[in-house]
Formats: sequence, C-alpha cells, structure tokens
Amino acid sequence: MNLKEKEKFMARAISLAQRAKGKTAPNPCVGAVLVKEGKVVASGYHRGYGLPHAEVEVLKDARKKNIDPRECALFVTLEPCNHFGKTPPCTKAILEAGIKEVYVGALDPNPQVEGGGARFLQSKGVQVETGILQAQCTDLIRDFYLWKIEKRPFFYLKLASTLDGKIATSTGHSNWISSEKSREKVHQLRKKVQAVLVGGNTFVQDNPKLTVRKAKSKKQPLALILTRKLPAEASYYLLQQRPEETIFFTLESQENLRLQKKISELGSKVVFLPVKNNSWDLKAMATWLWNNNIFYVLVEGGGFIAQKFLEYQLADEIWLFLAPKILGDAGAISSFWGRSIKTIDEAYTLSYQKVTSCGEDLLLILKP
Amino acid sequence: MNLKEKEKFMARAISLAQRAKGKTAPNPCVGAVLVKEGKVVASGYHRGYGLPHAEVEVLKDARKKNIDPRECALFVTLEPCNHFGKTPPCTKAILEAGIKEVYVGALDPNPQVEGGGARFLQSKGVQVETGILQAQCTDLIRDFYLWKIEKRPFFYLKLASTLDGKIATSTGHSNWISSEKSREKVHQLRKKVQAVLVGGNTFVQDNPKLTVRKAKSKKQPLALILTRKLPAEASYYLLQQRPEETIFFTLESQENLRLQKKISELGSKVVFLPVKNNSWDLKAMATWLWNNNIFYVLVEGGGFIAQKFLEYQLADEIWLFLAPKILGDAGAISSFWGRSIKTIDEAYTLSYQKVTSCGEDLLLILKP
Repeated sequence: MNLKEKEKFMARAISLAQRAKGKTAPNPCVGAVLVKEGKVVASGYHRGYGLPHAEVEVLKDARKKNIDPRECALFVTLEPCNHFGKTPPCTKAILEAGIKEVYVGALDPNPQVEGGGARFLQSKGVQVETGILQAQCTDLIRDFYLWKIEKRPFFYLKLASTLDGKIATSTGHSNWISSEKSREKVHQLRKKVQAVLVGGNTFVQDNPKLTVRKAKSKKQPLALILTRKLPAEASYYLLQQRPEETIFFTLESQENLRLQKKISELGSKVVFLPVKNNSWDLKAMATWLWNNNIFYVLVEGGGFIAQKFLEYQLADEIWLFLAPKILGDAGAISSFWGRSIKTIDEAYTLSYQKVTSCGEDLLLILKP
Repeated sequence: MNLKEKEKFMARAISLAQRAKGKTAPNPCVGAVLVKEGKVVASGYHRGYGLPHAEVEVLKDARKKNIDPRECALFVTLEPCNHFGKTPPCTKAILEAGIKEVYVGALDPNPQVEGGGARFLQSKGVQVETGILQAQCTDLIRDFYLWKIEKRPFFYLKLASTLDGKIATSTGHSNWISSEKSREKVHQLRKKVQAVLVGGNTFVQDNPKLTVRKAKSKKQPLALILTRKLPAEASYYLLQQRPEETIFFTLESQENLRLQKKISELGSKVVFLPVKNNSWDLKAMATWLWNNNIFYVLVEGGGFIAQKFLEYQLADEIWLFLAPKILGDAGAISSFWGRSIKTIDEAYTLSYQKVTSCGEDLLLILKP
C-alpha cells in the first residue's frame, strides 16, 4: 500500500471519529476501518462514553458482514489501548481477531502509555505503522489531551466583533453586530457544550438566558458567571428561571460572602476562586469545572474575560464572527482588553484554522 | 445560444479586459471576443489610454486569422461607444465589419449615453442583447464610473491590523503586525497606483519612503501627506530624497502659510484644502487629484484618515491585512477612529469581496 492510499483510509477513519465528536467525553473520539484488497470493508467508531471502543465496533461490523479480519488491515485514528478501563484492552481484541497489519494515526497523548499499545502489538508479531495523518488525528483529540493531561475542560471562546475590533458602542449598544445567521450558529455551538460562561458586566447589562434557542437541544447548558461582585438583586432571568443551572465564580469579600447566602437560597451555586494578579485564578476555575465533569465550555465574553482566557492560555478554539462593519470610534468597547503592552512582540499569537462565510459575516476559527 | 454559453464567452471577454486593468485610465478596461459555431475565434482588449478600443482590437485579430466577422457573434464587456473620441465610434466599426449579433455586459455608465450604442446598433438591424454577466462587467469598470461620473480617483484603503482592530501599541509600535508576505503584497498594490497617501502622524512617526520596494516598478508613486500641520523640519526622507514627488494637503493657517514657503523651496507642493466639519474637505482633495490626472490612490492610514475616508464615502476598496494576533490593550491605537457613535446602526457597513491567505495573515478585500 502506498502512502496516498494509507492516508485515504485514515481520512475515512477520521470522518467516522468526527461523528461522535463531543459525545465521547471524557473519552477521545476514535474511528476505525478495515481494509481488504484496497477497499474499506468494515467501519466503526467510539459512539459515546462507556460504549465499546472503535476497534471493537469495526470488528463487530466485520462479523456482521462475514468479513474475515485476518485478511484485513486495520486503520485507527488513535493508538489502541493496552489496559483494562471500562472495557478490555483493544490490543487484545485485535490479536484475537488475528489482524496482521495495523495503521495508527496519533499515539496515546498520555506520555506514560504513549506507544505502549503499538509496541505490544509489534511484540506479538503484528506489523504496526504509526503517524498516518498524524497532525489531523492529533487535532481530533485536542480536547482529550486537555482532559487527560491538563485535567481541565476544552474552552471555546466566541466573539462577534466589527472589523475595527469592537463588540459594542461606548454606550454598550451591541444589537446587532453579527448577522442573523451568525447568531444561529452561536446557538449550534451552545448545543455542543455543557456550560456557557459570561462575565459579570454581561450578566448585569444583557440579563442573558444563555440557553440554546435557535437550534434544537434536549438539555440546556449550565450558565457560568465569572464576576468580581455577586448580584445584589434577584430579578435577573438566570436567578429567576434557571437558578439550579447557574454557577457564580467570584472572589472572597465581605460583600460577596453576604450575597452568597441570598444566591444560595435561590438555588444557585457560588464558587470562590483564589486570587491571582489581583483577579480570579482561572486555572483553579478550570480545575473545578473538570472535577465536576464539565468538559466543554463556551466562553462568550466580554472583552476583559476574553483577554483573561488568552492570558491563562485557556482559549482552545476561538470563534470570531467578523461583521463587515466599522464603528470608527476609539471609545467603543474592544473585543479584548485589560492589559497594557508596549511592543507588538507581546501580542497573543494564534493561527487561522478555518475561514467561512456566515450570512454577511466571516466566521474565523483560530487556535493558539 | 443558451445563457450558460453566453456567460462563458462573456467571462472570457472579462478576463481579457482584466489584463489591462489599471493601464487604461481614465478609459475603462474592456475586453471582447468573436464567437463562431460555439468557439472563440478572435479576441482583443483595450490595452491602454489612447490605443484602439477592444472592438477594434478583436476585429484586427479576426483579420489576422482570416476570420470573417459577418459569421461571428461579438461579446464585449462594455457597451460599444457611439461617439468620436480619441478613436472613431466602435458602433461604426461593428457595422462596417458586418457583425449581426452583439452581446453586451455593462451599459455605458454615463446616463447621457447609456444605451445609446446598443440602440444605434439595433436601429441598424443588429441583434443586441445586453446585461450578460452584468454585475461582473459593471464591477470591472467601477473605477471608470468614478472617473467619469464622480470625477475623482479610485481610492484603495489599506490597513494591517490585529484581530482586536489595533494598528499599533499605545506607544506607537507597529513593527510588525502583518507578515512578510503581506508587506510584499502592499508593495504590489503600491505599484498599481499613481499616489500613496498617509496622514501627518504617520509622516512624522514613521518617516516613510512610500516607494515600491518589494516589487519591481519603473516609476514611483507620488507621496501625498494629509496633515493639519506642515512639517517644521526638512530632515524627513520625502523632503530630502523625493521632494518633487511629494504633495502636502493641509488647512490654511498662519503657521502653515509660513511653512509652505520652506517646503516649496525644497520642491514639494502644498495644497490648501477648504475646511469642512472642522477638518479637511476630502471631496475637494479628490477633485484636485482627478484634475491632476491621478486616477488611483492608495490610502495607507492611520486610523483617523481611514475613518475620514469612510465618512466621505471615498474608500472604494478596502484591503485589510488581518494578522492572527491580539493585543488585548484598549489603549492601543485603533484601525479606525475619530468619531463618537451611540448605536450599531450608525456603523459603516461594507461587504466582503474576497478573502485569501497571505502568509500567516488573512487578506480581506471589502467594498462599500
């Protein structure tokens, strides 16, 4: 088999893996195909947490189709596991099936087990080749890497700004910077996550619902409010309508300790974060969320919060809806603010991952 | 011939026209093909000011190839002229060649002659169809429309900004926001224009050359400085090295009248603009440039100048090099500033025309 063919089959495994993207947390999404005489003859992917791994699924599919796996090559996006977890190790299933040829995309991100599954198979006489479409396969499990190694959620950072980097006028007016279609897209993104986070200013000024509305969804994401000051009034939508689904992250102060009681009585949670650089320690918040099984979070700003997430290197994927509009007003509110720098070298540097049209806007997806 | 075929031939004529884009000023760029039995058999375009029109060129090509134009349909991006200018009317050439079928893209933008050429040909028994790929053909001569109807140059507005709309840090540092490749591209753009304009702040802070460097060019564009205050020192590069190619646009004041003398002695021109809304009347500047046969100008900012061009609806094409960087500092210098607005409805609204990668950056081309 030449490299081009190998990459074609791995690409097919990747597209299978993507079907369950977001549903496998905190497991990785993984796809696999069996190839015989230059053709994909069976396929499978890890469908969700606690369910069989991709390797087991593809073997099940082969059995159903009366394909003998001994005559096939296996392509799998992630190195097969070699340990007992919720399910028996996949290396065992591969050996029992009699597969002689295995192609792996990414190695296990855990440095303690990286290469272990591949080496074990090789020691049993299986021909193993790793690194087929490695960059894409690694990208597929960027979230898994964060859960496993950094023990924190994957954070999406979403913004809607003008070409001159403004998210509202100086008076706070922002309806609407982005197009109808862009706003719909945000609701599709909300559907993917377990929690939506906004800052205290947005909470007070916009009185948001933070629900999925323009897209169908069974469950609403939690509402996370990151604020210096807890709200003194109970009239806000989230406190009235969704108190049990709302969590406040704040700093300890006499005032906040006093308000905490009122908020707790309404049914919302208050979490006090340690102080770092005179502000919240966002790493501590990230750990708290992970400990509470929150694996995907959508951060919807404002500009100070957005900048803080960059500072903490917690913006894993930035979705910038760029409206073809210009305010031309330096006093309008910036998409990122809160620090003071002297040279361009101090800029946060990202890279474009994907650029698409979204109504009249552009949707720029960036990663660090 | 069905519409799809007609559009295919017109697209060919458009691509011919584009070959001379920028070289025909203040004439429009025009392309033409002759089609016989479903095939392009001859082609031509207007190669430059004072040279034969596209219709004459395509007929010349046909003669060279021994094609009889009487058996052909003519496709031309712009309505054939019906008056004596530098050359005899093209309607005459078409009739003399015996062409029976003419397809036109855009009608003449001059309301006084619009449709005249098409109607004249029809009155002589030629079958004329107008509006084939009309939007593209009209777009092709947007510059010509401005020269002819608005009697002003075509202005490109170029910026290099971060994702948060900043063109420099608060201390004025801007080397480099955009990638090497983007900076090269700017020099290619400079090559297309007859003049490059910057504001007084840029003149003082950057001491720019405003020459074409990273691309080959025979002739350097003029340097235009739009400023409230004429420079008091003669040490600037433009005044030392390119005084004859430098023009200052400013407002009348005792100080400026005094400095004008010094500047004139060095060889540079000073033009006093009328005052409008406590600033320069840019319409007057545009007229001055047109009167001086300057048809393409590249405006390179800064942010106040850029905003002023939007205010005067003089930004005909915006080239925004968007670096994947974020400063996160509200005090840094905005890409557009100088006015104060309350609601998003007051934003300048544009539309994306083209989006391409340029090194690590995106190049967004927008039009009003």
